[in-house]
Amino acid sequence: MATKGETTRNVILEHAVYLGASMGLESLSIGRLAEDLELSKSGLFAHFKSKENLQIETIRRATQQFVVEVISPALKADRGEPRCRALFERWLEWATRKGGCFFLSAIQEFDDRPGPVRDVLAKTQADWLDTLATAARIAVDEGDFRKNLDPRQLAFEMYSLMMGAHFLYRFVNDRMARERTRAALERLLKDARQDRLGAHKRKN
Amino acid sequence: MATKGETTRNVILEHAVYLGASMGLESLSIGRLAEDLELSKSGLFAHFKSKENLQIETIRRATQQFVVEVISPALKADRGEPRCRALFERWLEWATRKGGCFFLSAIQEFDDRPGPVRDVLAKTQADWLDTLATAARIAVDEGDFRKNLDPRQLAFEMYSLMMGAHFLYRFVNDRMARERTRAALERLLKDARQDRLGAHKRKN
Repeated sequence: MATKGETTRNVILEHAVYLGASMGLESLSIGRLAEDLELSKSGLFAHFKSKENLQIETIRRATQQFVVEVISPALKADRGEPRCRALFERWLEWATRKGGCFFLSAIQEFDDRPGPVRDVLAKTQADWLDTLATAARIAVDEGDFRKNLDPRQLAFEMYSLMMGAHFLYRFVNDRMARERTRAALERLLKDARQDRLGAHKRKN
Repeated sequence: MATKGETTRNVILEHAVYLGASMGLESLSIGRLAEDLELSKSGLFAHFKSKENLQIETIRRATQQFVVEVISPALKADRGEPRCRALFERWLEWATRKGGCFFLSAIQEFDDRPGPVRDVLAKTQADWLDTLATAARIAVDEGDFRKNLDPRQLAFEMYSLMMGAHFLYRFVNDRMARERTRAALERLLKDARQDRLGAHKRKN
């Protein structure tokens, strides 16, 4: 069972992830959290020591949530194209829910701020691009995708699409965001499955 | 000839666009600009009245720059696919130069801040998506792109790709950013040019 301290810490970090996604990581402060959650500022200081550490702990918590909500369920899908689809679909749900995507907001916020927070964030995104590329590589091995597919290129294009979805969803408030993104994914996967023209050329 | 007031205003806004792109629109303040440019704070107040107005004037100036550097030269390319390519290529240069893209930074910053600044920004992005979609529609009319192409879908995908490029360039510092983006564009255009499988099906 969680101790009282762990429970409090959980409540704080859940709220911090929500605030971070909707208002930005810079909006996180020990004072703000203390006020929102009616906790003592000194108690929060004991938990997190500094704003920077609070931001890093919040990124770690968001990463745990992402693993639980996106990666783990998608890994239950069959290896190959089904798993690539499941990763993307879960991610789309994550990115277009209320508040938007914690990570896509944070990377824009910290892209010009070198330091430990940016380093932790950069690692999460590199890990995620690796996860997408690995799923694509497996799909090549399984024969779902063409042999000459560059898995990192596909990962980059999936990532770009999600940024576009996030933009439409949050900025333009386009109700089409998910449909457009899914249509774009279909085109990407169609191209990944086969290069019929290329295959034809090679045969002749 | 520009008056002294106009010249000063130009110098201020050029610097404001640069700061906005690299540090964010929120970093713009009359005090900061006065310090950087060794001008009097009261003089800057006379020019811009408020921080919000300064931000809006800065967006307008960035839009003028974008028209001069991206749109006008690209419109000299032939109607059809060449013009779509020219728009994208000029835009890629704009987005991956020192400081990054003023607009892609600003929309991330203001996506959760309703108000006049966000409204002006939203209009710039809606106009730009329209410009891209119009170029794609012309390419359909010219016979370069397939008849059943959705020009707004292509515009969305070009936009997403640029967000991905901007992310790789600014956050991951990936020297591959431009190559990956160009490779993705090639596939996008290949898909726009023809739907051979679909054409085959329709013929039978």
